[in-house]
Amino acid sequence: MKVLVLGGDGYLGWPTAMSFASKGHDVVVLDNYLRRNMARETNSEALIHSQNLDERAELFFAMTGKRIEIIIGDCSRDRIMLEAVQKLTPDVVIHYAEQPSGPYSMRGFDEAKLTLDNNLGVTFNLIWAVIKYAPNCHIIKLGTMGEYGTPNIDIEEGWIEVTHNGRNDKFLYPRQAGSLYHTTKVLDTDLLWFYVRSYGIRVTDLMQGPVYGLSTEESDLDDRLLPNFHYDDIFGTVVNRFLVQAVADVPLTVYGKGGQTRGYLNLRDTLQCVELAMLNPPKNGELRIFNQFTELFSVNELAAKIQYVGNTMGLNVKIDKVSNPRKEAEEHYYNAKRDGLIELGLSPTLLTDDVISSMIEKVLLYKNLINIPKILPRVRWSGK
Amino acid sequence: MKVLVLGGDGYLGWPTAMSFASKGHDVVVLDNYLRRNMARETNSEALIHSQNLDERAELFFAMTGKRIEIIIGDCSRDRIMLEAVQKLTPDVVIHYAEQPSGPYSMRGFDEAKLTLDNNLGVTFNLIWAVIKYAPNCHIIKLGTMGEYGTPNIDIEEGWIEVTHNGRNDKFLYPRQAGSLYHTTKVLDTDLLWFYVRSYGIRVTDLMQGPVYGLSTEESDLDDRLLPNFHYDDIFGTVVNRFLVQAVADVPLTVYGKGGQTRGYLNLRDTLQCVELAMLNPPKNGELRIFNQFTELFSVNELAAKIQYVGNTMGLNVKIDKVSNPRKEAEEHYYNAKRDGLIELGLSPTLLTDDVISSMIEKVLLYKNLINIPKILPRVRWSGK
Repeated sequence: MKVLVLGGDGYLGWPTAMSFASKGHDVVVLDNYLRRNMARETNSEALIHSQNLDERAELFFAMTGKRIEIIIGDCSRDRIMLEAVQKLTPDVVIHYAEQPSGPYSMRGFDEAKLTLDNNLGVTFNLIWAVIKYAPNCHIIKLGTMGEYGTPNIDIEEGWIEVTHNGRNDKFLYPRQAGSLYHTTKVLDTDLLWFYVRSYGIRVTDLMQGPVYGLSTEESDLDDRLLPNFHYDDIFGTVVNRFLVQAVADVPLTVYGKGGQTRGYLNLRDTLQCVELAMLNPPKNGELRIFNQFTELFSVNELAAKIQYVGNTMGLNVKIDKVSNPRKEAEEHYYNAKRDGLIELGLSPTLLTDDVISSMIEKVLLYKNLINIPKILPRVRWSGK
Repeated sequence: MKVLVLGGDGYLGWPTAMSFASKGHDVVVLDNYLRRNMARETNSEALIHSQNLDERAELFFAMTGKRIEIIIGDCSRDRIMLEAVQKLTPDVVIHYAEQPSGPYSMRGFDEAKLTLDNNLGVTFNLIWAVIKYAPNCHIIKLGTMGEYGTPNIDIEEGWIEVTHNGRNDKFLYPRQAGSLYHTTKVLDTDLLWFYVRSYGIRVTDLMQGPVYGLSTEESDLDDRLLPNFHYDDIFGTVVNRFLVQAVADVPLTVYGKGGQTRGYLNLRDTLQCVELAMLNPPKNGELRIFNQFTELFSVNELAAKIQYVGNTMGLNVKIDKVSNPRKEAEEHYYNAKRDGLIELGLSPTLLTDDVISSMIEKVLLYKNLINIPKILPRVRWSGK
């Protein structure tokens, strides 16, 4: 298939590009290095320096004989997005091209504005590029489980039947997110759903939980192919942060009470999920939504797991509860469904002791690059 | 009170500014004539030419001794919005500053993009202006009943209790709108609700139905104070269009089967509703939502009413069912609540025969200005 990966420089985008190229698809990456620029400006660079996309695509070709085409451009600019789709007429576009950090979106006006404009702008341009130039193209959009927030009812996969005063109807599942970043994903979903209904485009919205992991089958060939691995408070997800804290001999920082429960998944499973969505497209006029995670954990459970495995490896892992920089429920009901991708064939990679120890081993190789002040919360949800 | 009216040149904005100035409030209007420019570009100008804001404010002062301060500026530009709120520190901001037309938003890419950027941009800038410079300021935001679409369950006022698998929670009422314009109002609501939860601002979201009418107490002083009255397919609402068709001796154009039911209100009642919201503010951290309409009618019922009254006045009013340019249900369940504003004291001005005949009489005075081709649908919901 002809696959266009928007945001193909990212933590998920680059491994996706390699994985799909390995499987024989024609892969084109479009990215403008926005995340790298933001990371540099906020002193939040990844643990291991990544070569640029052209260099990595060259290395990947040298090692595998598979080509990944690279286009450097900003898909929040309409001309760039529309021309790319017009020229390539892809079968699938995988849309990762968003400012991906909750804390970044909560730093202040400028960061919030960038997040809103970029994320909505890319989604809007992509919708129109597909309407105009590739109406049968399947848009695979990365959403987030964070769109749902922490409701007091079971979380369904995107839709809910509501009975009210004796009548009933089916709606998008209610969404109320915990950061402006997550809120832009809610807006994305609203926008996609409108254009699916109006113009019959076809979309899969993958409501993904926090992803962890450093490596994939392709990056195992050479560490220079590793995805960017963030462990800072802004771009790092909680498991990755804890792995680095365990190695750096600083306490794992649990925000608040630590009862916050979410659905997590391994980076390798993200690739499986996106591929399953791609190989099983929805029909035109359908917005299909999957919840994309494999296991539910509270932050306390994650900390305890990593502490346990770290200590068996001779580390001395401590846990420290710190004042919560976010506004969120620290103890709450959480029961989220995730049957759709399993039914399509997802075979989960669970967060076993072996998986944790292999991630810790990898981080240990780069221990000297860890910059501890980056890990502690630097952004508070207080505004202004 | 110190009141800032965003979009104060508009069909609702200008009458609001006059009404509140008459009642002794300090009124400042901020507008960039966007709607006038769009109307000219699409050959959709209002029936009666309006003087510019400076001229009308001068005339209003001459007639009443009340001042309305005019600022010409684009509040989708952050500096302009933030500086206005910083300088004025208003008690209330009334936010009408949106591209207000469904058909305009469905003309094509450029119009859709303008609608998305302008509407979200103004709302976002306003939120931040208030957070930074006037945290106790009450934002009164004009939403639309169109956000709800036509669900198969009763439409509550903004919120709904959902019981699911034996548990329950309260959420924003589900929203699925029928045009991109209406969808931007959904996004506005999501955005406001996020910032209300996060930063404790206070907001009233008025989910307004289609408004009809030409005049208000203040415009009765002099026709040069009339609000802009659109009867075209792009900016005109259905009742206003029908009034003009009745006078122009062309059939009332019912789109499709005509069973489309909505909640309507008189322009004079919009002023009442906004004032009631202003005088009874929500507390900080509250998003209060009212459904703002007074009566439910199907399009067929409206056409029949105007035909009946027109014919008693000696007109020869015909009704013509035309192919529906929109994608919408033409026969559907519709039961919407509207208790909140009544409880605050709204005294509805109903669409009686007298009200209809007085509107027809006003339009008759300007019959020679009617341009018939503007009335028929020029925008179809087919995209591209």
